[in-house]
Amino acid sequence: MSKLYWEDFAKDEVSEHGPRTVSRNEIVAFAMEFDPQPIHLDDGAARASMLGGLSASGWHMCALAMRMMADGFLLNSSSMGAPGVDEVRWIAPLRPDDSITLRATVLNTRLSRSRPEMGFVTFRFDLVNQNGAAVMTMTSSLMLGRRQTGNTA
Amino acid sequence: MSKLYWEDFAKDEVSEHGPRTVSRNEIVAFAMEFDPQPIHLDDGAARASMLGGLSASGWHMCALAMRMMADGFLLNSSSMGAPGVDEVRWIAPLRPDDSITLRATVLNTRLSRSRPEMGFVTFRFDLVNQNGAAVMTMTSSLMLGRRQTGNTA
Repeated sequence: MSKLYWEDFAKDEVSEHGPRTVSRNEIVAFAMEFDPQPIHLDDGAARASMLGGLSASGWHMCALAMRMMADGFLLNSSSMGAPGVDEVRWIAPLRPDDSITLRATVLNTRLSRSRPEMGFVTFRFDLVNQNGAAVMTMTSSLMLGRRQTGNTA
Repeated sequence: MSKLYWEDFAKDEVSEHGPRTVSRNEIVAFAMEFDPQPIHLDDGAARASMLGGLSASGWHMCALAMRMMADGFLLNSSSMGAPGVDEVRWIAPLRPDDSITLRATVLNTRLSRSRPEMGFVTFRFDLVNQNGAAVMTMTSSLMLGRRQTGNTA
């Protein structure tokens, strides 16, 4: 696959990445390091909570989505990072042994006004489990280098 | 310190948590697992990038902020999780051996309309380095149980 530049992303384009299975050990290891709330660590506490059972930290879902993005297309692109994230919604619990797919939809693309060598691609990302249910949605604008740098058009 | 409930958070209140020092090994380990872009893994590639040197994944900053939130007050509260995040801005690079502090400002509080036993507290979080520069800001509404459940007021 040839390297992807800003020009290669078009509004309304959808791509799917994964699937990836997430183990209980991964969920607990992430939670112990970054989000040690009982609902992410302890079955008993998790069953008694709103979520009704052990589930991954929402930040773990974000990190997994990032990895699927990287493997799916970013590592083969002119990615220049991202200024942030516009919105994250944690919709449903991510459970041990769930198998997740990342669906990336291009909402729009635009050139940078201040840096002619790059542009922005705004994505909506949906992290979907093996039952087709979205567990997380996220909107973020990524910065990508243009194929023909120097063209200030 | 007595356990914190929704009633214990007041608009405009500011609290600070940390500091915490972040090592190069931590930055590289997180990136290898979740965000294996060269700017987070390789000094040469990082120096040649917009960021001018190795820096942590933005998602690592989020995960570190979560841990500082947990240790700072959430684990001693009636936290019931969060529906998501409204906005994350990655403002400046987080470098190896930086020492970060999390400043939490209460933007507003409100009761849940559908669940009388809980309320929302909307925070702005600023992750600040040892030079006083914000490396990340984030806005998020957390769900917290009320002290007196059953009062549907």
